[in-house]
Amino acid sequence: MTDLPIVSDLTDPALTARLRHVLDHKTKPLGSLGRLEALALQLGEVQGTERPVLRDPQMVVFAADHGLAARGVSAYPSDVTWQMVENYLAGGAAVSVLARQHGLAMTVVDAGVRHTFEPRPGLQVRKIAAGTADMFDGPAMSATQCEAALQAGGDVVRGLPGNAIAFGEMGIGNTSSAALILARLSGQPIERCAGRGTGLDDAALQRKIEVLRGVLARHARATDPLDVLAAMGGFEIAQIVGAVLQAAAERRVILVDGFIVSAAVLVAARLQPKVLQRCVFAHQSDESGHRLMLDQLQAQPLLHLGLRLGEGSGAALAWPLLESACRILSEMASFESAGVSNKDGAAD
Amino acid sequence: MTDLPIVSDLTDPALTARLRHVLDHKTKPLGSLGRLEALALQLGEVQGTERPVLRDPQMVVFAADHGLAARGVSAYPSDVTWQMVENYLAGGAAVSVLARQHGLAMTVVDAGVRHTFEPRPGLQVRKIAAGTADMFDGPAMSATQCEAALQAGGDVVRGLPGNAIAFGEMGIGNTSSAALILARLSGQPIERCAGRGTGLDDAALQRKIEVLRGVLARHARATDPLDVLAAMGGFEIAQIVGAVLQAAAERRVILVDGFIVSAAVLVAARLQPKVLQRCVFAHQSDESGHRLMLDQLQAQPLLHLGLRLGEGSGAALAWPLLESACRILSEMASFESAGVSNKDGAAD
Repeated sequence: MTDLPIVSDLTDPALTARLRHVLDHKTKPLGSLGRLEALALQLGEVQGTERPVLRDPQMVVFAADHGLAARGVSAYPSDVTWQMVENYLAGGAAVSVLARQHGLAMTVVDAGVRHTFEPRPGLQVRKIAAGTADMFDGPAMSATQCEAALQAGGDVVRGLPGNAIAFGEMGIGNTSSAALILARLSGQPIERCAGRGTGLDDAALQRKIEVLRGVLARHARATDPLDVLAAMGGFEIAQIVGAVLQAAAERRVILVDGFIVSAAVLVAARLQPKVLQRCVFAHQSDESGHRLMLDQLQAQPLLHLGLRLGEGSGAALAWPLLESACRILSEMASFESAGVSNKDGAAD
Repeated sequence: MTDLPIVSDLTDPALTARLRHVLDHKTKPLGSLGRLEALALQLGEVQGTERPVLRDPQMVVFAADHGLAARGVSAYPSDVTWQMVENYLAGGAAVSVLARQHGLAMTVVDAGVRHTFEPRPGLQVRKIAAGTADMFDGPAMSATQCEAALQAGGDVVRGLPGNAIAFGEMGIGNTSSAALILARLSGQPIERCAGRGTGLDDAALQRKIEVLRGVLARHARATDPLDVLAAMGGFEIAQIVGAVLQAAAERRVILVDGFIVSAAVLVAARLQPKVLQRCVFAHQSDESGHRLMLDQLQAQPLLHLGLRLGEGSGAALAWPLLESACRILSEMASFESAGVSNKDGAAD
């Protein structure tokens, strides 16, 4: 196995204390910016400064197909994966629109789509295979393929500029992989981990859960994070794991989208727990397992908008809050600089 | 009493159906953009079009002082009101920073601050008096003052360009007025309506509640919305009521900040219920009565970030979501235009 990136501990109590001091002396009641203050603190810690600045932010959407999709675990046919890749590249998908709104440079990665794309700007072809194998019968990918995917994801990040990176995904059937990874790594029953994905009805959800139960039984011995990833993951998920590890090693801010990207982060964090110091969780999605996933990650998501689209759309929507957190630190006046009386009635 | 603006009913089932159709045929699973879809629908309804566009957005912060503040209902001294107005104008407050980030033109209105400001760009002096009277002893303002404040708020809106307007406020002591308005108009007990404001401890909160109980007893006969506003409101709150009514009559999108602006909207909506068709509620604040207030308004706020700063800071943070909702309608591809298979497996 190729060596994975090592992710260092960023803990720096002196810096944290300085950041807390700066925030507490801004012209506002203590803690009154709520979650935004915790975010500002985290961004300062990731960048090791009291004045974090987000440069050249990237949105990277990894796409791949899933052999399990043939078993009817999604409301949509597999062809939608490549069709949506075309839609991303044409700028018409939700994530395209929202990334454009916020100036996030977008890259789409073919991690293993069952389709051959014409080369064009914004597309990276890093196909491991044309879709994973049917994990009901055997592992979704071989150990070699899994390793290649981790490597490819890391390579994508190494080739991109900037110090902040949002991850999104596309792959018909991939809420199944994410639910399976969650179930196995958390020990929670599959019916708590699996949800309606793109819109299954009650009966279809029950069938999905039965299929996933079979998959879990088939791979009962996969418990190590990388074994779980190879047995029940997807190429886009494995590439995101590699990308997250690389971005974390480079000390980039990592903006996590919804259920599927969170599953990749869960694997990455089991390999290198300090990854989570760099992760900002954009939102809690409506996919029913996401709350459980976020609990596993001890994550406090920024948005609660009932999203369940994936793609990176939630990450794009949350992006301006990261910008706001940086600006609070760098642009807001302090009680002293503004000549505003503090709580005790005297200028502080 | 001067006639208040009449706010018409925007209900247009044919338009709503067209908007729903457009949203449902965008390249995403049905309803998968959650709260953002409801927002897109509302913005289309307010503007009467399937392609709403937000032009020249405004942030207006109304500031005034409160006679009741002398009774220790706030953690901060009254001087902070004028000092913060200076901070807004200098660009160093949270709302200044966030409005600048999102291109919201900012206006500060002196609705009744106990201070004389040097004239300068971005400041409108529409002072009704140098702070309200102590409402523990009598009405906060006379009926004539209340009427003048409503008029002044409407005048502010009439003088501003654009079709979307966010409201914020500043006034040491004004969570007391907001809590009193909520208690009287909702019939809920004051201890459910009043909260810690800028940061009262348990003992100070108890003292605040006792003071507010006395105010409610003193004004037991004020039940009509405008009587409640005059008896227990503030000049900034009354001007926001007038501004909201005017903005609604002009069919502008109204972006509502936190607890105090919501109290003004509650009064406005009791006068003209259709105001609420135009109101987008930016966030649910940490001020304990705000959830109750939002329930009264049947409002679903966009953000839950534990904010309790006021000023308009939450409205500014929510602003990009309104932009996103418009772009979803105007820029996203449909299944048909993008050649993406829909749920039934056929291009729609």
